[in-house]
Parts: sequence; structure tokens; C-alpha cells
Amino acid sequence: MPEPESLLNSIVGRLSDESSYTQLFHPYRDDEALPSGEILKKIIEICRAILFPGYYGKARVSRQTLPYHIGVNVQSLHTLLSRQIYAGLCFSDKNCADCPEEVVSGKAEGLSRSFIAALPELREILATDVEATFNNDPAAQNPGEVIFCYPGIRAIINYRIAHQLYELGVPFIPRMISEMAHSETGIDIHPGARIGHHFAIDHGTGTVIGETSIIGNYVRIFQGVSLAGEKLPPDENGHATRGVPRHPVLEDHVTVYSNSTLLGRIRIGEGATIGGNVWVTSDVAAGTTVSQQNNFKR
Amino acid sequence: MPEPESLLNSIVGRLSDESSYTQLFHPYRDDEALPSGEILKKIIEICRAILFPGYYGKARVSRQTLPYHIGVNVQSLHTLLSRQIYAGLCFSDKNCADCPEEVVSGKAEGLSRSFIAALPELREILATDVEATFNNDPAAQNPGEVIFCYPGIRAIINYRIAHQLYELGVPFIPRMISEMAHSETGIDIHPGARIGHHFAIDHGTGTVIGETSIIGNYVRIFQGVSLAGEKLPPDENGHATRGVPRHPVLEDHVTVYSNSTLLGRIRIGEGATIGGNVWVTSDVAAGTTVSQQNNFKR
Amino acid sequence: MPEPESLLNSIVGRLSDESSYTQLFHPYRDDEALPSGEILKKIIEICRAILFPGYYGKARVSRQTLPYHIGVNVQSLHTLLSRQIYAGLCFSDKNCADCPEEVVSGKAEGLSRSFIAALPELREILATDVEATFNNDPAAQNPGEVIFCYPGIRAIINYRIAHQLYELGVPFIPRMISEMAHSETGIDIHPGARIGHHFAIDHGTGTVIGETSIIGNYVRIFQGVSLAGEKLPPDENGHATRGVPRHPVLEDHVTVYSNSTLLGRIRIGEGATIGGNVWVTSDVAAGTTVSQQNNFKR
Amino acid sequence: MPEPESLLNSIVGRLSDESSYTQLFHPYRDDEALPSGEILKKIIEICRAILFPGYYGKARVSRQTLPYHIGVNVQSLHTLLSRQIYAGLCFSDKNCADCPEEVVSGKAEGLSRSFIAALPELREILATDVEATFNNDPAAQNPGEVIFCYPGIRAIINYRIAHQLYELGVPFIPRMISEMAHSETGIDIHPGARIGHHFAIDHGTGTVIGETSIIGNYVRIFQGVSLAGEKLPPDENGHATRGVPRHPVLEDHVTVYSNSTLLGRIRIGEGATIGGNVWVTSDVAAGTTVSQQNNFKR
Amino acid sequence: MPEPESLLNSIVGRLSDESSYTQLFHPYRDDEALPSGEILKKIIEICRAILFPGYYGKARVSRQTLPYHIGVNVQSLHTLLSRQIYAGLCFSDKNCADCPEEVVSGKAEGLSRSFIAALPELREILATDVEATFNNDPAAQNPGEVIFCYPGIRAIINYRIAHQLYELGVPFIPRMISEMAHSETGIDIHPGARIGHHFAIDHGTGTVIGETSIIGNYVRIFQGVSLAGEKLPPDENGHATRGVPRHPVLEDHVTVYSNSTLLGRIRIGEGATIGGNVWVTSDVAAGTTVSQQNNFKR
Amino acid sequence: MPEPESLLNSIVGRLSDESSYTQLFHPYRDDEALPSGEILKKIIEICRAILFPGYYGKARVSRQTLPYHIGVNVQSLHTLLSRQIYAGLCFSDKNCADCPEEVVSGKAEGLSRSFIAALPELREILATDVEATFNNDPAAQNPGEVIFCYPGIRAIINYRIAHQLYELGVPFIPRMISEMAHSETGIDIHPGARIGHHFAIDHGTGTVIGETSIIGNYVRIFQGVSLAGEKLPPDENGHATRGVPRHPVLEDHVTVYSNSTLLGRIRIGEGATIGGNVWVTSDVAAGTTVSQQNNFKR
Repeated sequence: MPEPESLLNSIVGRLSDESSYTQLFHPYRDDEALPSGEILKKIIEICRAILFPGYYGKARVSRQTLPYHIGVNVQSLHTLLSRQIYAGLCFSDKNCADCPEEVVSGKAEGLSRSFIAALPELREILATDVEATFNNDPAAQNPGEVIFCYPGIRAIINYRIAHQLYELGVPFIPRMISEMAHSETGIDIHPGARIGHHFAIDHGTGTVIGETSIIGNYVRIFQGVSLAGEKLPPDENGHATRGVPRHPVLEDHVTVYSNSTLLGRIRIGEGATIGGNVWVTSDVAAGTTVSQQNNFKR
Repeated sequence: MPEPESLLNSIVGRLSDESSYTQLFHPYRDDEALPSGEILKKIIEICRAILFPGYYGKARVSRQTLPYHIGVNVQSLHTLLSRQIYAGLCFSDKNCADCPEEVVSGKAEGLSRSFIAALPELREILATDVEATFNNDPAAQNPGEVIFCYPGIRAIINYRIAHQLYELGVPFIPRMISEMAHSETGIDIHPGARIGHHFAIDHGTGTVIGETSIIGNYVRIFQGVSLAGEKLPPDENGHATRGVPRHPVLEDHVTVYSNSTLLGRIRIGEGATIGGNVWVTSDVAAGTTVSQQNNFKR
Repeated sequence: MPEPESLLNSIVGRLSDESSYTQLFHPYRDDEALPSGEILKKIIEICRAILFPGYYGKARVSRQTLPYHIGVNVQSLHTLLSRQIYAGLCFSDKNCADCPEEVVSGKAEGLSRSFIAALPELREILATDVEATFNNDPAAQNPGEVIFCYPGIRAIINYRIAHQLYELGVPFIPRMISEMAHSETGIDIHPGARIGHHFAIDHGTGTVIGETSIIGNYVRIFQGVSLAGEKLPPDENGHATRGVPRHPVLEDHVTVYSNSTLLGRIRIGEGATIGGNVWVTSDVAAGTTVSQQNNFKR
Repeated sequence: MPEPESLLNSIVGRLSDESSYTQLFHPYRDDEALPSGEILKKIIEICRAILFPGYYGKARVSRQTLPYHIGVNVQSLHTLLSRQIYAGLCFSDKNCADCPEEVVSGKAEGLSRSFIAALPELREILATDVEATFNNDPAAQNPGEVIFCYPGIRAIINYRIAHQLYELGVPFIPRMISEMAHSETGIDIHPGARIGHHFAIDHGTGTVIGETSIIGNYVRIFQGVSLAGEKLPPDENGHATRGVPRHPVLEDHVTVYSNSTLLGRIRIGEGATIGGNVWVTSDVAAGTTVSQQNNFKR
Repeated sequence: MPEPESLLNSIVGRLSDESSYTQLFHPYRDDEALPSGEILKKIIEICRAILFPGYYGKARVSRQTLPYHIGVNVQSLHTLLSRQIYAGLCFSDKNCADCPEEVVSGKAEGLSRSFIAALPELREILATDVEATFNNDPAAQNPGEVIFCYPGIRAIINYRIAHQLYELGVPFIPRMISEMAHSETGIDIHPGARIGHHFAIDHGTGTVIGETSIIGNYVRIFQGVSLAGEKLPPDENGHATRGVPRHPVLEDHVTVYSNSTLLGRIRIGEGATIGGNVWVTSDVAAGTTVSQQNNFKR
Repeated sequence: MPEPESLLNSIVGRLSDESSYTQLFHPYRDDEALPSGEILKKIIEICRAILFPGYYGKARVSRQTLPYHIGVNVQSLHTLLSRQIYAGLCFSDKNCADCPEEVVSGKAEGLSRSFIAALPELREILATDVEATFNNDPAAQNPGEVIFCYPGIRAIINYRIAHQLYELGVPFIPRMISEMAHSETGIDIHPGARIGHHFAIDHGTGTVIGETSIIGNYVRIFQGVSLAGEKLPPDENGHATRGVPRHPVLEDHVTVYSNSTLLGRIRIGEGATIGGNVWVTSDVAAGTTVSQQNNFKR
């Protein structure tokens, strides 16, 4: 075995050899930063403080001083978000190195502004999610408790923010935002999914809602539920086929109990109830209740 | 599209409009703080340092100096916990604004003191949980490993702290404490559940134990297990009916394997074993083994 | 009830009583530190920055300056890791107090150096995991996205680091590293498991891979999947029997869908597919597809 | 020498003995906090951000968004300052333990509000200090440089804030604020001193302006200058006599060069110039120039 | 007195009124940041770590790994310094808003690169300052002590860095760097001063070296010494005349003892010694010793 | 000019060249850390919290819980201080690399223990300094104010701690501790100086007390006062002669006013008063008052 010092030096040499990191190196132009999880966390906190005044945000607010706080928060949000969108644009577009910085950064600011313009609508729809969660859960003492500490609401807030950015065409950032909620809550909602109002997730750990899922209004799902994508045959390059609808559609007033998996582009009809621990791979008619047969052995 | 600056100003205006945040605003009196997740985290850390001396807590302790450390920790705990309980009382009680501050704060201090008086008993029962976990897991090298890094123990510590506060009638704070463990470990134990000694959770991600569950001694459950509540008909206001027993009862020496769901106020008899991925909605007799029939198609 | 002050004093007395913490006290010699979760987090970050240059690590790197960064990172890694291994050795070995400090610390440095020598191989195999994950997921836009924010990759990185340390005989630290990924991603891979190249985990929350599992190449598993250990009869002291193979073997090109449990030392043959929500307790032949029968009632 | 452990224990015993700390112990009632240097630092930063918008304060402000920032800052200032004044009141008044908390805290809030009401005037007079400093210093490139990094201005800002609080009767806090500037800049201005507009201090290290000093308008002093108090005979208890005028009076347009000491209740007439390194103990007539005779030996 | 809430609102209104902050507002274009004291502190720390390897910088370095550390530090320095120079350019040039960002930022990077190119020379001259300080001070145990904790060396390091930037024409930043040392050490050296090699400052608090001072080699000065500028008649606008030589010239081997003031463009000849507490306003011949006559009264 | 990248690379090369840093490199053995200013700061804070209970230290203490706090603080102090003394021993002794680590570290722990044993005496003498300062200053409202925010007391605390370590023979660390106070307060007391009880420093910026000074009881000095060392002829190697008495002796009850310099091994007799701005180079008889003649020109 070589001497300690020279061992380290030789390993550094091997690890610095270009051929060893070809696929794993991020080549970026000088002025691009990588998107930052830490900043995105701050962005989500600011959004929460704007959307639910008094619940989130460190400052104590009253009705009189609220406009000051919202004003400062909206401006901070714009500054931080523009920069993250800019980083997302650079990260996802290899050709970005050729665009003049002003163009990319102007685009980023425009996208951030469009997102901010949608905040009032985001607040409205989130109010319905809070209401639905509170009404469904006998253990909730008051809506404040739901807003303040229910992981389902936390995941839905991140989802609705991420989805808005996704709809505006912001690359990469939405996925990071939804993964942040995933890590915190165990709930994994792809920003591409489309979800109606009055949506509620109970407990939620292990819940997965795939990219092309469509969910109606007044839908409620539990922990461990997967709205999973059918595996499509790979394209001619052996890569996964991208962008094709392959996840379930849930109509209004559907309920799915814990640990069930709904696989592929199937349709669960209005008002249907899916019991726990079921594996569903075909359409379910409106109003039906599906549950595992208790044919277990004792 | 309006000019950028004026767009931001107009959005701030809309978001500051009272009608837009009616349901989502937390009106609180001047001297109340919101409960703080960060402080509660510190509180849990102090509790761990008191209960498991030498494992948790930054300081190096010896038998001779231990009383100093416990003394300082108990005092810090009291200071921080009183304040959080105070915040919890204000948060959950809309009428709180009318009570004199001294009354609320005196009550909070009394509750904190009662919690502290229960610490010796908490340490005793947690010792049985550690023992059970170690004895059950062939992968554990020594009890220290269990105390120091098993998520199951981490979740049970939070639960036992939260349950003690819940029993004392502290509002809101217990739920926050259990959600903290939920986020860290994926294990969601409602502080209202009643759980005996020698309790063990393996792996645990996705495990849910509902508000009115009752669990005996020497019970062991795995990841993805739900002790779920039956849905009760809503009350006359369309709200969920609250406070009614609706989760399972597990008698002593029951084992439940991964990803099974036990739904409603059913009773699993002493020594029964529930296999994985099963959906159980009715009583199971003592000593029975229940498991999914392997009637899958190949 | 006694006076507040004296109550606290008497509780401190009870909690400081040696008999009350016998099993829960960590007696350690003066110069040992406990392993530190915070430092291990830093260690993982440094490993990521070395393995995936440009993606992780705060600094902006270019091909010209990369060797500087790798050099500094490798040295920091060695300093921090030696110390943590040292702490792990002391923690797990009660007799450690009798060894001269130099011996233990020399051993720790040697182990750290051996780990560092394996970094180039770790980078190679992780490149195959990234490739597999990207090829499998139609929602992934580019490999960078996979490296940067997929929880599956994050868990596999921690696993491969932890496994390397486990193979070197480092006690305790590997388990802490895998629990860190468990907490972040909900994916629980025991460092003792043996896993081939091109391994992919989708979503992953609730996935458990037990200590003696063996996984071939090109295997793909989903959220909520358990490779679980058979319960063995306790040894003569009533303790769990340790170290016996008791988890499944998955051959090359196996796929396991969400929420399925594979229990015991069973063998899943090459190319087999296990559908979602299944409970498998016996061998599955190569090429077979196993799925839950849809015999649920409506 | 006793055994290490027992040595520490015995020292702890001696240090905990009440008789050993009688004069050095701060007995305070349960809900009082000590004033906090860290919070006062934040308070000064907020004041600066309000008074000199764009120079201080982390946020980027424009004319359109300035009111939001000032609104939030004024509210934070009020919250933090009320609490510090409250702590100051408790600290300095031994009888405070007997007042109901509401009374003290109401008084503190009133004082904080009065301070805030004076901010516009503070801004006006500070503008004259900036102007004077810029006009006097040939090395200053622009007023922004003066505002942003001249220690003289920094000390004067703290002084004017501290003096305002002193005039309102706030105990203790003003002194802490001036000591903060003293530590940062080496300039020690007692909050009790009365200082006119267009005041400038150059370099400033070692400058001392005593409690009962009176300084007119357009005065300029340099580093190392002391406006020092005559020593008065002690009172009947052997304590220093307090509150009697004993520092110099400087009329308008006086200049004092470096390292000079002006001692006692003397009057320096309008437009007088005091050269460097002089010791002045009697009145100086208006318009006079005083300087050390160069009768040094070579 | 108005109601508390409305009082705050009205003060916010007054403070937001444009006329009230005309002279005190920093109008800056959107993408400029203000120079940051915190970042400059980091820059100085990096410079120290590069110049005095092993003394400064958190990492433990050996001769083998030193190039890695220097490489990483030089790159960080360039990144941070370019940005601060950019901020300095924008801050000091009102017309900057009209230049394209690329131009300003390209200029900033060029200046940063030129500064870095001078680091080897900076190290050489600083070595002579360390040597001179050590040789002069009987209380110094070894040169390491001088490097590591003498305020004189600390101030000279900042000065030499600031002076280099000043010579390159970087605006504003040099002054901030010298003010940082001023605050830490009480030593105020204007970046414009020109100082030879083997320069030593003892104790140093209160020492001031003005903008146009010229100091030869092997000069030593003590605490409280001022090399002060003559007051020049104001220009036609009543502003200070800027840029004219008005501070002393000290030739080689001059010593100035504590608390002396040297005023105006005087010349202190080679090898002259100025005693303490003297006020010198005319030339001093080479080799002369000047000291205060002890004609004090007793 | 070379290309930017290669310029940086070439500068890194020059700066890494061994000949360029010979005198400026700190060669240290692998397990030594440099002394750390940050840790020493913490050590001083802990000492203050032990010595002045209730004034310093973040925790709220009462007489009942004080022993816990002192116990924890004494233990932390011992842990941190031992390590810093160890670092100081390694730093100052080039031969240290040859001693076994245990020997050095055992010595460090012994020194730390001896320091701790002296804490009760330190508290006693500091009580006299507080008393003297309070009695002398008409601006002080109560002793608490003196303890809490007078820079003179702050500097004396650091001095008395540093002197104790100096007397025990701890190298380097005492100097760092006194430089910390120097930077904060502008008061520079060499740890080697010997100072009696009831010592008071007023304002203090610029005060210097040299290594071999001897100060009696009840002495009071002001800002800018230097007790300075005579320059001794260099030794045969051209280095400063070290360790010879060369600073003044002040007998009991001496007062020295601002900006005076006392140079060399002179003796200021009991009860003498030295006025401001004087330069004293010979003995002063007991009871005499010395002051600058006011023979300045007007």
C-alpha cells in the first residue's frame, strides 16, 4: 500500500481525470448558478406567508400592517424567484450558453411576474383544500390546525405552487419544489398532475400522484395511494417514451383509501370509493365501491 | 400587461384585501406568539438529553456531573415548554383574547410543571420500548444503536411526550410534536392513541396510528401499517363527527406486518398476527394468524 | 403539590438517580465523541461534490480548477471521516476504553483511507444507477434532473457509501448514513444489502431493503416495496438471532411494483415482474409476472 | 491535590456559595429578560435602514416599494424596542418586581412609540451631520461613502438614537447603545451629552464626550479628543457625586484637533480652534486658536 | 396623542415621503448590489489564508495539499472580489446606470484578476512587516505570534490589500477594507497612503495615517500617532479641496512614539525619532530626536 | 496578458512555491489544531457567566438552580480550555511534534484544572474592580451597569483571566485573550503585567499597559494612557532583548489622566496624580501632582 499522503494525491488524480466524470459533470457557463434548494425553501416560506397571513412568516401581523408585510414579501419573492427561474432555464437548456444573459434573465423575470399575478387565485383554491381537509378529519380541532401542521396541506401548497410554475413553462424548478414536499411529508405529487378544488390528502406518507394524472373536485385520498403510470414501450433509442398520458383519471367526489395502487390511464368514475390495499388496473364505474376481498387465510 | 412595478403593486393590493383572506388569516392578540416548530424541536432535544443521558445532548456527561446537566436541562425545558403551551392555549382558544395574560400564563406553567413531573415515568416506559425493539431486530448490534438511530424509537419518544401533554389537556402542541416525528420518520402516531409498554415499530415509514387507537403491551408493527378510522356520517353542520372511538384496538402481543390496513373500531385479539398487505375490517380472534391468500396470477 | 422550585429540584434528583438510567446511559471514555449526525451530513455532501462535480458542492467548478476542488474535498473528507469512524469504533466496542487512543485512531484513519481509495469505483457504479433511473422514467427531462433531485438516487448514493464502509468493517456509521437517507427520502436500505449495478428506485417512499437482501443488476423497484426478513426463532437468551440470511434474493432484470412485500429468503428469478400490493413468501420463477387478482368486491 | 473530578465538584461548590457572589449576582424576577446586546444591534440596523433607505437594510428598495419596507421596519422596531425598554426598566429598578407586568410593559410600549415618533426629526438632523462630514473631509468621494462607511457617522447615529431614548427617560438601554458604537469605532459619546446639528468627528478613535457636555452647531472634533469631567468630591457615602455639570461646553463652529483633552465645566467660545495634544482646563475665548508650544528638545 | 396603530401608520407615511430622504436615499439600478461588509470580511480571510498558509484559513494544510487549498481559495477570491468591485463601481459612479452590465462586470473581473496577479508581491512585502514587528517587540515570543494575533499586522495586511486595489483604481472598496481594520484594531490607515517595507505599528489603537502620507522603509510608529492633514481652504463651492498632498512624509528608519501628532505636508528626515505626546507642524531634520519638554508643574 | 484561466493557474503555482512562503507557513503536526479565536471567545463568555451569575450567560438563573448552571459551565470550560491550552502548547513549541500526544494533552488538562481552581479568587478581586469603577464614575447608575456594559471592566476581566493563565505558564493563549479585549475595547493590557485590587479604567480606548508593568491597589487610569516600555538595545542577533523589566511601576492610589505616556522603568509614588497629555520619563514622588503646563499659544 502506498504512503498515506501519496495515496490521497493519486486518488485525487483519478477522480480529476475527465474520462471518469463525463456523464456526471455539470458544465455551466460562468454566470449561471445552480438552482438552490435552500433558496427554494425560502421562496415557499414567503409564498405561505403571503397566502396565509398570520400563520406563516415570522412577523406578527395585524390588519393595519398587513399590506406592508405583503408588499415586502411580494418584492422578495420576485427577486428570489426570478433568480431561481433563471437558474432553472440555464440548467435545463444546454443551448442556453449561447443566449445573451439579458434575454434569459428578462424571460425569468417575466415568468416570475406571471407567477405572482396568479397568487390571488392560488389563495382561493387553497382555501377550498383547507376546508375539505378540515371537514373530512374528525381529529382536527379547527382550520388553523389544518393550515399550520397538516402534512397533506403542506404538500398541496407546494404542489399548487409547482403546478403554476409548470404551467408557465418553467423548467426544473417545479420538480424541485415538489420533491421538497416529498421529502418533508412523504407525499409525491408530480407538478404536471392536474387537480381540482377541495382536494384532501390524509396522513399521506407514501402517496404518489404521477405526471399525467387528472383529479377532479372534492377528491380525497389516503396514505400510500399510488396513481401510477403504465410502463410504455421504450422509444427507438431505448429511452422511456415521454409526455404520453399514462396515469389515472379520478372524477369528482372519488375517495381512495390507504395503500391502494391505481395503475395506467384508467378512469375512476364520479363518487367511486376505492378501499385500502387494492391493485386497480381497469376503469371503475361511477358510484362503485371497490375493496379487497377478505379471503385471507387464518 | 401593466408595467412591472404597478403589476406588483396591484397584486399586493388584491392580496391585502380583507375579503380575500377571511378564512386564512390568524387574528391573534398582541402578546401571543404562534407555537414555533423550531422551539418544539429544541424541546424534544432537551427531553431526549434528559431521558437518555449521554446519547443525546451535545455535552459530554459523566456520572458525577450528570445532575448539573439534568438540572440545567430541566430548567430550560420548563422555560421553553411553558411558553409553547401558552402559545398553544392562545392558538386554539378564540376566547383567549379575553383572559388576563397572567391567568393563561400561570396555567401554562402549571401544565409544564406537571409534564416535567412525569419525566421519570416516561423514562421507565421508553426503556421497555428500547428493549423490545432491540430484542426484535436481528440487525441491531446493541441497544445504543437502537436508542441512537432507529426511527421507530425516535417516533415513539415523540409520541410518548406528545401523549403526556395530550392527557394533560394541552391543545395543539402535542399534534405538532407528533407531526415533527411524522416528517422525520414517516411514522404518524396521533397523540391521542393509547399505547402500552414494550412497543416496537420496525422501519416504520408510512405507519399510521389513529386518534382513538388502543394498543396493548408487547405489540410490534411494521412499515406501512394503518390503524385507520372508520368514516362516520358527518354531523348536522356537515362537519366530521369528532371524538368518537373509531380506530382499532390491538391486545397484548399482537404483530402486524408491513402495509396492512386495519380499519374501524375492530378488536385484534391477544397474540394475533396480521400478515402483510392485508385489509382487515372486522375483529380477529386471539392467537389467529391472518394473511393475504397468494391467489395472484402469474 | 410541592412548591414549583422544589418540585423541579426533586424531579432533577429522581432523574439523576443512577438506578433510573442504567440501561439508557452511554458510558464513554473521556476523549471519545459520539458520532455526529451533523458531521455525517457534511461527509455525504462532500462525497456528492467529489462524485458528481458541478452538481453538488457550493463552489462553481470548471475543468481547469476541478483538481483543486477535488483535492480540498478529499482532504476534508479524510479528516472528518477518520474522526467519525473513530467515534463509531468507540461507540460500538465496550472494550474500547482499554485500547490506547493511538491504536484506535490509527485504525480509523486506515479505514477512512481505504474508503477514499474506493471513490473512483463508487463513481462508476453510481453512473449506471443514474443511467438506469433516467432511462426508466418518462417524466425525467435529462440526467441532470435525476442526479440533482431524484430521491431514489439520493438514497442509492447514501447506500453505496454506507455499504462500502460496512464492507470495510466500520461499525455503526453505515447505519447512521442509511438512516439519514431514510429520513430524507423514506427509502430504507440496510447497508448490509448487496446490490448490483443499474439499480433504480422510483418515488421510493416506504421502500425497505433488509440487511441480507441480494439484488442483481438492472433491478427496478417502486415505492412501498419491502424486501423483508423472516422472523427467526430467538436464541437461547430470548434475543433475535443475528447474521443469518433471511431476506429475498432478486436476480437480474427483476421489477417490483409499488407496495408489494417480499418476505424471507426467497428467490425472484431473472426478469420476473412482481405487480403492486402483493404479498410474496415463496420463490418466483424467472420471467414470471405475479400480480394481485382483481377479485375485489364492488 | 485532590482527584480531578472531585476538584471540579468542590470548585463548583465554592462558586455556588451565596456569600461569594453577593455583589455580583443579578436577582431578577421571573419574566424579565436582561437587555440583549444582540437585539440592540438589530434595533440599530433597523433604525439605519429606516433613516437611510437603500444604504442600510438588506433589501433592495425602490421609491415605489419603499413604504412597504419602512412599514415593516417600523413595526419590527416597535416590537423589539418595546421589549428591550421593558428589560431596561426592570434591570435598573430594583422595585420593579413589585409592579404588575402590564404596567411596566405598557410604559415600555409608550416609550417605544414616542421614540418612533421622533424618527423623522432624527433623519433631518443626521442629514446635517452627513453634510458636515462630507464637506470637511477632502478624502471623501461622495456623501454615500460617508453614510456607508465613516465611523464618525456610525457613532453619531448611535449617539442620536441613544440620546433620544435618554431624553425620554429610558434607563440603561441608551448607555448600551453608545457602548456598542464605542466598541465598533473607539468613539465614546455619553447619551446624556447635548449636541447640535452639523456635527462631525474625524477618524474618531479614542474620542470621549462626557455625560454633561454641551456641543453647539457646526462643531468638528478629531480622534483622541476628550471632553472630560472634573473629579468632584465624593458624597457623604464615599460615592461619586452624580448628575452635576462637570464637562465642557463647546459653542458653535468650534474645532478640536487630535488627542487634546478639555477638562471640567469650561467654555470654549464660538469659532475657537483647539490644536492637537493640548490639555485645556480653563475657558477659551471665542475665535481664539490654542495650540501646544513647540518647545520640545531635539 | 393619536391611537397607537394610527401613530405608527402616520410615521411610516412621513418617513416614506420623498422629500424627507432626498439626500439620504441610495438610488441604484436593479441589478446592482451594495458592497457588503460581510463579503469583504470573507475576502480578507481568504487573502490571509492564501498569504500565510497554515495560520489563517480553517483547513489544516500540509505542503503536499497546499496547492489544492490555494487553488480553491484563489478561485473563490476571484468570484467574490469581482462581484464586490462591480458593486463598488456601481456605487461610486452615478452614470453607471447607463453602462451595459457586461461592460461594468467585465471591467470588475479584469480588476480582480490584476489584484490576484499581485498576491505574490503582497506576500513578499508582508513578510518584511512581520519580521520588523517581531524584531522590535521584546514581548513577542515568535513570529507566529506576530502573524496570528498582533493588531498592527492585521491592520497592515488590510492596508496592503486596500492599497493595491486603490492603485488599480477600484473605488470605494479599499476604503471599506481599511475601515474594517480600523474598527477591529483602532488603526486607521487610508488606502491612498504609500508605505515602504519593514513597516511596524505597536499596539496601534488611535493611530491615523492620512490619505497622502508617504512612509519610507523600516519605519515604526506607536499607538495614538496621527499623520494628519493640514486643513486646506475650501473650494469655490465650499467643499473640501480634494487630492492635494497635505499629510507628512516620513523617510526611512523614522520612529514615532505614542500619541504624537504630525500635521501637514512636513518631512521627517531619515532616522529621526519623534517622542510621545508631541505636536509637530514643521520639518524635522534627519537623525534628530524630538520630545516634549518635561516642563510640567508638580 | 495571458488568458484569465491560465493566469489564475500560474498565480496559484507561484503562491504554492515553497520558497515563497518559508517564513509565513505554519508547519504543524497532524493532530494539533491552531488556537481558535472563536472558542476563546466562548471560553471568556463561560468565565463571565460563572463569575457574575445572572449578568452573563444566556440562561435565566435563580439561587436554587445556580449550582446546576455553574456545574455545567465549569465542565464546559474545562473541556474547551484544555483543548485550547493544548493548541497553545503545540503552537509555541516547535519541539512539540516529538512529545507523545498524551503527555501534552495531560499537561494541558492539568493547567486547565489549575486555572479553574483559581476562579473563586478571580471572582473576589474582580468584585473590587467593579466597586472601584462604580465609586469613581458619577455617570454610573448602579453596579449592574458597570458589570454589564463598561468596557473598562470587560478589559479587566479578560486581563485577570489572561494573567492567571500567564502565571501558570500557558503560552500564547493569554496574549490572544488580551488581544480580544483590545479589539473590543481599545484597551491593551499585556497578560504579563501585575495589577492590584480595586483597579479602574475609565473609557479606556487607547490605553496600553506593557508586559512588565506593576500596578498597585486602588489605581485608576483613563483613556489613551500608555505604560510604555523603554527601548532596550538589541541582543547580539539584532533581536529585541526579551524579559527585562522596562515598563513603569505605579504604587497604590495613583491616578493617570487621559493620553499621558509613562515611559520606562520609572516609579510613580503612592497617591501621585498624573494629569492628561503628559510625557513622563522619570520617577514621580509619592503624593505629587504632575500636569502639562498650559503654555500654549493662542
